[in-house]
Amino acid sequence: MTQESLETQMYEIGARAATAARGLALAPRTVKDQFLRATAQGLRNHAADILAANAEDLALARAQELPAARLDRIALDEGRLEAIASAIEDIAALPDPVGDVMQSWTPERNGLNISRVRVPLGVIGVIYESRPNVTADAAALCVKSGNAVILRGSSEIMHSAQAIATCFADASAACGLDPACVQLVPTTDRAAVSLMLAGLHQTIDVIVPRGGKNLVTLVQEEARVPVFAHLDGNCHSYVHASADLEMAVSVVLNAKMRRVGICGATETLLIDRACVATHLPALLEALIGAGCTVRGDAEIQAADGRVSAASDEDWATEYLDNIIAAKVVGSVEEAIAHINLYGSHHTDAIIAEDMLVAEKFLNEVDSAIVIQNASTQFADGGEFGMGAEIGIATGRFHARGPVGLEQLTTFKYVVRGTGQTRPK
Amino acid sequence: MTQESLETQMYEIGARAATAARGLALAPRTVKDQFLRATAQGLRNHAADILAANAEDLALARAQELPAARLDRIALDEGRLEAIASAIEDIAALPDPVGDVMQSWTPERNGLNISRVRVPLGVIGVIYESRPNVTADAAALCVKSGNAVILRGSSEIMHSAQAIATCFADASAACGLDPACVQLVPTTDRAAVSLMLAGLHQTIDVIVPRGGKNLVTLVQEEARVPVFAHLDGNCHSYVHASADLEMAVSVVLNAKMRRVGICGATETLLIDRACVATHLPALLEALIGAGCTVRGDAEIQAADGRVSAASDEDWATEYLDNIIAAKVVGSVEEAIAHINLYGSHHTDAIIAEDMLVAEKFLNEVDSAIVIQNASTQFADGGEFGMGAEIGIATGRFHARGPVGLEQLTTFKYVVRGTGQTRPK
Repeated sequence: MTQESLETQMYEIGARAATAARGLALAPRTVKDQFLRATAQGLRNHAADILAANAEDLALARAQELPAARLDRIALDEGRLEAIASAIEDIAALPDPVGDVMQSWTPERNGLNISRVRVPLGVIGVIYESRPNVTADAAALCVKSGNAVILRGSSEIMHSAQAIATCFADASAACGLDPACVQLVPTTDRAAVSLMLAGLHQTIDVIVPRGGKNLVTLVQEEARVPVFAHLDGNCHSYVHASADLEMAVSVVLNAKMRRVGICGATETLLIDRACVATHLPALLEALIGAGCTVRGDAEIQAADGRVSAASDEDWATEYLDNIIAAKVVGSVEEAIAHINLYGSHHTDAIIAEDMLVAEKFLNEVDSAIVIQNASTQFADGGEFGMGAEIGIATGRFHARGPVGLEQLTTFKYVVRGTGQTRPK
Repeated sequence: MTQESLETQMYEIGARAATAARGLALAPRTVKDQFLRATAQGLRNHAADILAANAEDLALARAQELPAARLDRIALDEGRLEAIASAIEDIAALPDPVGDVMQSWTPERNGLNISRVRVPLGVIGVIYESRPNVTADAAALCVKSGNAVILRGSSEIMHSAQAIATCFADASAACGLDPACVQLVPTTDRAAVSLMLAGLHQTIDVIVPRGGKNLVTLVQEEARVPVFAHLDGNCHSYVHASADLEMAVSVVLNAKMRRVGICGATETLLIDRACVATHLPALLEALIGAGCTVRGDAEIQAADGRVSAASDEDWATEYLDNIIAAKVVGSVEEAIAHINLYGSHHTDAIIAEDMLVAEKFLNEVDSAIVIQNASTQFADGGEFGMGAEIGIATGRFHARGPVGLEQLTTFKYVVRGTGQTRPK
């Protein structure tokens, strides 16, 4: 395709999305839920077609000799497809944020009744990599929150994504909604991504990248549209001298090892010098015993011969692996300074019984999520009670932390008067 | 100054602001209020110096033969200076948004206590034109909300701005705060603005432009940092057939003519065909009688010989002048479609007694502020009970509508546990 015809095609997709968004913004909850349930049923009814499309993707991926982990991400089967369908039904069952009155008040000076009412953002662009389920998850969250979505999956899953998107289109038409509520960019041309990030900035209200660090970096560099994302999840667990030993061991072990590949996994353990003798041996024993490599500063190395040396680079590294950096600090102030310097403002925890120390940590650590006495792996929309999330954001606005349905909305002020005019 | 040394200077300003921001974010209300009150007193104590600096600016402006309106914007006198000082004291008296618990809940599945707590944004860049009072207003709002501020006024007010900024610096030091909480960029080099908009994007969390449309356009085009602003305030007042005639006349007259130069001034009157005979003559009489030029479609022109012809361009124009565009519509649907097409998503009003029609309008007009039965000129942070505003934003995130103290903050999630680990 020429650059020119690609641009024309993308602007048309944008224009259709903007029109669909106005309709979807005003659609009542029952219609949106019906749309989602019909899509889930459609996915089940067309399981054979979807799996056949997925087999095409897999054949191409194998021909390119992609690594096994990548093939596994691409692969669908009956079980995974049912999980996708029921996840859509779960999203349909969540409360509808649109129309919620967030606040309401009447200034004395003018007697106006002022409300802040939730409304959808508009058009959301989702750029994702090799997981076909994102097609459905992201689309369902956008639809439920009243937003039109433009999906752009990687070329590796183009057939699977197209088959899934077709189920959304069929279901929307059956519910009297504009099929452009959910559109999949039908080209693997890389230039389409650039157009979503910059060229369509008048149409797309927010971009959500779903994928690895390279994708997020690219999106953050090129985007002229607001981005809901986090680049790193370099999370810390800090064990204060007042920590309950047993709690510290179980929480730190969970924070690091429950799943090492998620953004809320702890990457650095900080421990007070005052409890190195009492707490460190059990912590190291638990981590190393669970298969974790520990890279420590001199004091941590001195405590256990199995600890290798950490460099400055380790403090800034998100391993996403069975590795943890460990450092001794002299005070809560030193822990806070370390986290604010090396961390990524994502999720950081303190294990402490001393409430004054804990409050100081919670107040002064400059991260989207700060935790006392629990695992950093709770950084998740589902665990926060949001039902589902499209990702976790570390920006300083609007969507910070888990991005659930509410974070996919904005608000308007609705003012009701009785003929007031403003005095000079 | 060479580009290189300017860059060095700007990065130093940014680094100092970031450090100051961490301290100010944690400063208790009493300290911030003391800082602001000491600044107000400092402005009074140094009135002679400030007025002398302002006289220098005015002499340069006169030598450049700037128009009288521009000279008036630059000019300070005892009265204006006292107004600036007492505005700072008013801001000091407002509630402190920082630390507010916005929401608090405990998901059943994990028993964690989760709160959303307000925190400052960080570093705010304010780029403004020829009003010296913005130096003080903007700085006071940023400080009160716990943010460091980098101010960049136009060259026309450099001496005045510097004299006012000195009062902030002196007062901050006296209160034990970092003088870098409020910094004025000490150069009129245009490249400093570009650096604020793009080069310092790692340091500056948000840009607030305060000035005319050229400034806002430039900022929105170049900024790699989020911008709190509106480009246009093309506001509408729609008179529905169910409108009370007397209310319609007084509200529309106020919406257009109270002050024609503010962003909440109505620029287009829409009127139902069903009440052209009953309502239009009195509306036109009131507007024309108050000195307003009316540009109308054929039906409006037919109603009054003093109405000139409106072109399509008029529907999209923010006059900021004694001019109003006027158009007859056949239904509330047509009014909504006109506003969503030509408007700027700022503030739009309906005058109607029919509650179903009004609710439809309030729901379907896609603007930051929608109003029933009151003047669009209420689009103002003070009138909304926010105490003061740094501007009005039409973006779809976070700060939408009047930007007061709350909108200059973000939030963090504070999670308190009792040793919870996340299940597999």
